[in-house]
Amino acid sequence: MRIAIPLYDRFTALDAVGPYEVLSRLPGASVTWLAHEPGVVRNDQRMMGIEAQAAFEDLPDPEIVLVPGGTGTNDVLDDERLVGWIRRAHETSEWTTSVCTGSLLLGAAGVLEGLEATSHWLDLQDLERYGARPTGKRVVEQGKVITAAGVSSGIDMGLVLAAKIAGPEVAQAIQLGIEYDPQPPFDSGSVDKASTETVELIRSLAAGRA
Amino acid sequence: MRIAIPLYDRFTALDAVGPYEVLSRLPGASVTWLAHEPGVVRNDQRMMGIEAQAAFEDLPDPEIVLVPGGTGTNDVLDDERLVGWIRRAHETSEWTTSVCTGSLLLGAAGVLEGLEATSHWLDLQDLERYGARPTGKRVVEQGKVITAAGVSSGIDMGLVLAAKIAGPEVAQAIQLGIEYDPQPPFDSGSVDKASTETVELIRSLAAGRA
Repeated sequence: MRIAIPLYDRFTALDAVGPYEVLSRLPGASVTWLAHEPGVVRNDQRMMGIEAQAAFEDLPDPEIVLVPGGTGTNDVLDDERLVGWIRRAHETSEWTTSVCTGSLLLGAAGVLEGLEATSHWLDLQDLERYGARPTGKRVVEQGKVITAAGVSSGIDMGLVLAAKIAGPEVAQAIQLGIEYDPQPPFDSGSVDKASTETVELIRSLAAGRA
Repeated sequence: MRIAIPLYDRFTALDAVGPYEVLSRLPGASVTWLAHEPGVVRNDQRMMGIEAQAAFEDLPDPEIVLVPGGTGTNDVLDDERLVGWIRRAHETSEWTTSVCTGSLLLGAAGVLEGLEATSHWLDLQDLERYGARPTGKRVVEQGKVITAAGVSSGIDMGLVLAAKIAGPEVAQAIQLGIEYDPQPPFDSGSVDKASTETVELIRSLAAGRA
């Protein structure tokens, strides 16, 4: 099962690494990190880099496409090398997936036309541009297309997908292997649960960044 | 706030990237990934690499030390360059933390003597070797030393630490920023919750690996 994770300048690390840590544990999984060129790609905060082992064109036909989001997403929505790769890979993929604003890249590739989809809550409405129906759910399954909400939601998406591919027993074993028994000290992880002040703080920080 | 994450051959990616994604969002945070030499360090599954920007000795006095675990931990427990760096950094750190089997490295550095600590559930009892008192809790706070359980627990630990450093409002904003509203499709993320079959499956896979 060949899994491809395309990286681009200013991706968000956990978007990719969360589901990576789940899906790479599937029996027979082989993960390749792709980019415009092989080499280290820096993340949104410029504080870390993940190595791309190959260029997009080197792996045209993965079984699983996993597209992370990031603050750099908007700058690559018209990057035909990346978006074209997603479009073509989707034609033969078994699963086409995204985390966070990675869904905007699926949208730009024409993958989400007429489908329900999700994204980071700050960017959710942008999905309408691509003919998608935005939904606030954490993991949205539409046939072979699965989109996940912001950043950390990719772990949940990975487990949902692992169960579809290898069955619930394997997915549960992976969950135990990564000891995913979440116990966040607060309950402010979604826009419906966080206080108005918290939501406004993040909105203003995002507006300042844009 | 200088945060150092030491990498070594066969670390587990999510151990490091989970808390990275939380702590790097603290106001004024600066994260440096360290290793024996600058360059890409490969993870436990050999399917990804994270770039170390500097050698251990280049950052002797971070405010936060964050040590990830991995299948390679046992092979570096007597690596004096790494363990000695942890020991010395702990002398001046504000917080010394670990995820998963990273706690064994804290133990080897003498940090856990007489303290409660946690680790991946498979390796928990190994902490006794270092004079620590193993506990099955997900995040264990002992003064400035915080240990977290397996792999994904570092996200929870990161939020606990973020609240201590910058207050609960900031930690809650970070939680919303990374949309950490966990909804795993199964409830098998701890050894107490998973089925006996699942626990035995992971035990046998781990035994085969060792």
